[in-house]
Amino acid sequence: MAEKKKTTIVLFSGDYDKAMAAYIIANGAAAYDHEVTIFHTFWGLNALRKDEDIAIKKGFIEKMFAKMMPRGADKMGLSKMHFAGFGPKMIKDVMKKHNAVSLPQLIEMAQEQDVKLVACTMTMDLLGLQQEELLDNIEYAGVAAYLSDAEDGNVNLFI
Amino acid sequence: MAEKKKTTIVLFSGDYDKAMAAYIIANGAAAYDHEVTIFHTFWGLNALRKDEDIAIKKGFIEKMFAKMMPRGADKMGLSKMHFAGFGPKMIKDVMKKHNAVSLPQLIEMAQEQDVKLVACTMTMDLLGLQQEELLDNIEYAGVAAYLSDAEDGNVNLFI
Amino acid sequence: MAEKKKTTIVLFSGDYDKAMAAYIIANGAAAYDHEVTIFHTFWGLNALRKDEDIAIKKGFIEKMFAKMMPRGADKMGLSKMHFAGFGPKMIKDVMKKHNAVSLPQLIEMAQEQDVKLVACTMTMDLLGLQQEELLDNIEYAGVAAYLSDAEDGNVNLFI
Repeated sequence: MAEKKKTTIVLFSGDYDKAMAAYIIANGAAAYDHEVTIFHTFWGLNALRKDEDIAIKKGFIEKMFAKMMPRGADKMGLSKMHFAGFGPKMIKDVMKKHNAVSLPQLIEMAQEQDVKLVACTMTMDLLGLQQEELLDNIEYAGVAAYLSDAEDGNVNLFI
Repeated sequence: MAEKKKTTIVLFSGDYDKAMAAYIIANGAAAYDHEVTIFHTFWGLNALRKDEDIAIKKGFIEKMFAKMMPRGADKMGLSKMHFAGFGPKMIKDVMKKHNAVSLPQLIEMAQEQDVKLVACTMTMDLLGLQQEELLDNIEYAGVAAYLSDAEDGNVNLFI
Repeated sequence: MAEKKKTTIVLFSGDYDKAMAAYIIANGAAAYDHEVTIFHTFWGLNALRKDEDIAIKKGFIEKMFAKMMPRGADKMGLSKMHFAGFGPKMIKDVMKKHNAVSLPQLIEMAQEQDVKLVACTMTMDLLGLQQEELLDNIEYAGVAAYLSDAEDGNVNLFI
């Protein structure tokens, strides 16, 4: 039996549109029977945040980061044309109009298709994010695990 | 005969400098006899827009997007140091001074070298862009076509 | 003996956090015995600038670029949440608190691990940067050299 093809994406960006692109490619690759991993690091971790406020004791800077960063995929901004939140609303409006799938739905779909969602523990530590704040059923790993997925991969992207 | 190497680039960004980087790599790879594809999605579609105003009936949001987005490669802004359009002018000035090739010329050169330029139909739909507004002799496809190019590729980049 | 795996990164971005991600992946890959190259182009060249002011005769535009661009890795801004320099300070504060390695240290570490650091000569020319302004012990090359590294690579990223 032929080995499965592999798609491994680093999601560094915290932009709604870039995260959408990452999850659209990931879901597509999963549908074509690739083994797919999304490794969330830095601002990309925000896509994995739960949208409720989780009470956790944190230091001052970590609290600041937690406040300043969007809580969950639905609250992320656009990479371009942000216009005080107007851009994301426009995108969401056209998406609804065209029956396009929203980012939180794309993430759910990825989980159903067994896309491996990984949170980078080193940057979680840096930004003061804790496991309780992130979605259930994700994995936690570092750059070594990323590389071992990526080095035999077919499609490697940094988004 | 050895199979051709493959370079497949997703151009997501609508920045002049990032699009330049994409097209410089693409033209280089084509010169080294790679099979090259640039898959334009989201803001990267603006690189393929014709620079004249094309009269098309559109909904309100689609009209807004069309107005807000740059019409063609020559009008795109920089990813850094935009300074109210001053940055792109500086880059274009130094490029002229050094006889460097402009983005519209790089795109033309890519077409002459048979680089496959693809517009992502899903995001065209989302942003309300229509085939009449885009350059001639390009292809139209979705994420499945991208993956089938990328999965056997040597150089895969997301720009 | 098995051939060495190869990781080749284009560092286009001049953001502190993105350069950190690039150098963390590069150092990780070098530790796992990959042959690693970071090809610095456009704003990514700033990571290689020495932090002192080097007196060099330049044209007007080149002088402007030199002034406007950060001098060295330590002075680069964040891709998100810049807030007039507040963001980078926060990141550096948490990094110190967590004993994380700073970007200049990551670059030094990469050099010690024989990561090949390349400066793109074409964009050096464009931005008016000269070899005297950049770190010692780096290489100078163009897109052809990048492609010859990348086309046999395992992990290719554009950051």
